[in-house]
Amino acid sequence: MIKVHGFPVSNYYNMVKFALLEKGFEYEEVLTRPSQDGEFLSKSPMGKVPCLEVREGFLTETNVILEFIEDTFWGHALFPEDAFGKAKVRELMKASELYLELPARELFGAVFFGRPVSDDSKASVGEKLDKGTAALNKLLTFTPYAAGSAMTYADIMLYYTVTLAEVAVQQVYGKSLYDDLPGATEWLELMEKNSNVQQINRDRDTALEKMKQG
Amino acid sequence: MIKVHGFPVSNYYNMVKFALLEKGFEYEEVLTRPSQDGEFLSKSPMGKVPCLEVREGFLTETNVILEFIEDTFWGHALFPEDAFGKAKVRELMKASELYLELPARELFGAVFFGRPVSDDSKASVGEKLDKGTAALNKLLTFTPYAAGSAMTYADIMLYYTVTLAEVAVQQVYGKSLYDDLPGATEWLELMEKNSNVQQINRDRDTALEKMKQG
Repeated sequence: MIKVHGFPVSNYYNMVKFALLEKGFEYEEVLTRPSQDGEFLSKSPMGKVPCLEVREGFLTETNVILEFIEDTFWGHALFPEDAFGKAKVRELMKASELYLELPARELFGAVFFGRPVSDDSKASVGEKLDKGTAALNKLLTFTPYAAGSAMTYADIMLYYTVTLAEVAVQQVYGKSLYDDLPGATEWLELMEKNSNVQQINRDRDTALEKMKQG
Repeated sequence: MIKVHGFPVSNYYNMVKFALLEKGFEYEEVLTRPSQDGEFLSKSPMGKVPCLEVREGFLTETNVILEFIEDTFWGHALFPEDAFGKAKVRELMKASELYLELPARELFGAVFFGRPVSDDSKASVGEKLDKGTAALNKLLTFTPYAAGSAMTYADIMLYYTVTLAEVAVQQVYGKSLYDDLPGATEWLELMEKNSNVQQINRDRDTALEKMKQG
């Protein structure tokens, strides 16, 4: 059976979990935290999660794992069939990760671990987020899904990006990220009707609760 | 005919050019600089190059364009056929971009445009590059190519990443990046025997010469 190394509070881990649940493919979850430990680095070269373990070896980087899932497993197709449509979904995935997730992540230390955030980084992250949301708005269709009439990997990456980034943006800037992404609120409602999204959010909340109790 | 928007000094542009030349596919080069101009942003949402123009519309993000080229055009295959091999190539492409190209890029302002580089960023970029090269070393095989016996997109992204990063690393840290990437020197020699690499480097040098003459 394939194994997914990671933990249910990681938004990237949850992207992979969602894809596997949508495919209806059985997998084992191996509770793993990011680590610079030599043994883990031999599996995940940057020490990150998620990390997928299959017969042939280990794979890292969420978008790489999602592509592998699509190339390998039957079930619900999560890319359009035509090459251009597939490319537009990949473009959205990349934009969500590089121009929204990565800048928002710079605030996570402040938001989730109480570290200070300087005025400089507050300003520079704010600029990056403005540019990133403007770029995303040019790519998103919300008709009703991120890239068209069917749910794709673009929805998966975007969902686990915006829901976490929103927490950080609210806390640091006192505004909602969704105000800068027209159509996002209705789309979020749609996504949250999905039973796999609900299941993964319950798993995340349970894990968060355990963490709080130490 | 498909069009590639960009300019021959851009390393990302040259990755796309190389892939198209390897495929033997005709294309038109449209000289374009990165721009935040509204009209260009409607084609390239972050204002970046390269940007590929095909019948169906525009595509950005180099790895997305490379995947589209592979999905669409006949000719020299630049991904392995098996899903796991393909995933390992994608993992290397991602690692080259995120953990080597992007940190090295933070030095480009200093190296290519004479802006000051603070001791803080010199140190933080240095740390990122050390971590990135250590991760790449776990993925690179150099047997003799980056991910095995055949040239793949991993070689293309890596070549245009390391050759530019090397200039920055030499100037800022006074050492060679290749000392941290065992096997890279022999692989570079191999890559530079490729006539398309030679052609693209000549085009780049001609463009650089023109830029210097203003």
